[in-house]
Amino acid sequence: MRDDNCLFCRIVSGEVPATVIYEDEDSFAFLDHRPLFPGHTLLVPREHVETLGELPVLQVEPYFIAAQLLARAVESGLEAEGTFVAMNNRVSQSVPHLHVHVVPRRRKDGLKGFFWPRTKYKDDEEMKSVQSKINVALKKLKQN
Amino acid sequence: MRDDNCLFCRIVSGEVPATVIYEDEDSFAFLDHRPLFPGHTLLVPREHVETLGELPVLQVEPYFIAAQLLARAVESGLEAEGTFVAMNNRVSQSVPHLHVHVVPRRRKDGLKGFFWPRTKYKDDEEMKSVQSKINVALKKLKQN
Repeated sequence: MRDDNCLFCRIVSGEVPATVIYEDEDSFAFLDHRPLFPGHTLLVPREHVETLGELPVLQVEPYFIAAQLLARAVESGLEAEGTFVAMNNRVSQSVPHLHVHVVPRRRKDGLKGFFWPRTKYKDDEEMKSVQSKINVALKKLKQN
Repeated sequence: MRDDNCLFCRIVSGEVPATVIYEDEDSFAFLDHRPLFPGHTLLVPREHVETLGELPVLQVEPYFIAAQLLARAVESGLEAEGTFVAMNNRVSQSVPHLHVHVVPRRRKDGLKGFFWPRTKYKDDEEMKSVQSKINVALKKLKQN
């Protein structure tokens, strides 16, 4: 349930102070202290879960209802023009406790980052091969 | 329900071809044809909804259950080490139909982007002020 060595578990319990933005029975949100932009909020499940894939099925709804609410509140509260809502699972994940970043965005705010540069598939064969690999994995996951 | 001018609505209906990765009653996923890395998948709700904030509450659970399933399948199917799961709402959103990007990640894959550089809050005052603005917005949203 809780990992005593986990920074976010310690923030949820109140042991490590944070600027709390939101909390409910399942979720807890606070300001990232090194924000991309002021208002950059991290939403975590209260229980220690490392990645999106490990979030218990019953918690998917309350967690993302909270994410949706936060995205709306960060945008309207800070008079932003949009939001960036993202999770890093394992790679680039600084704290191994699932967190959704909710970041207020404005046009020309300088954040290009992640979505460029893009690449291209060599040909249809490569796309079909990738499609097939993901489909095999999906079938396996559905069988469990 | 459907916007005839929307590229993603036309992909969902089959009018515009795409490499389909997943579909269920509510959601539809296909390969981004200009991927960050091969396997970069876009998950959209079948209905035309522009942003996360506008996704009907009843669709939050099935949509993110599908996102969770896809994140697991993209990672295991492509033998990746992690995933990047993200939504751009309005700003940096190339097609105004909600889509979750599911991108396979590997350590040292060169994707730093979005999460740097970070900034700092000037002082506690600034953090409190931001907290207060988001809290006011949350209260308003909850009243509705």
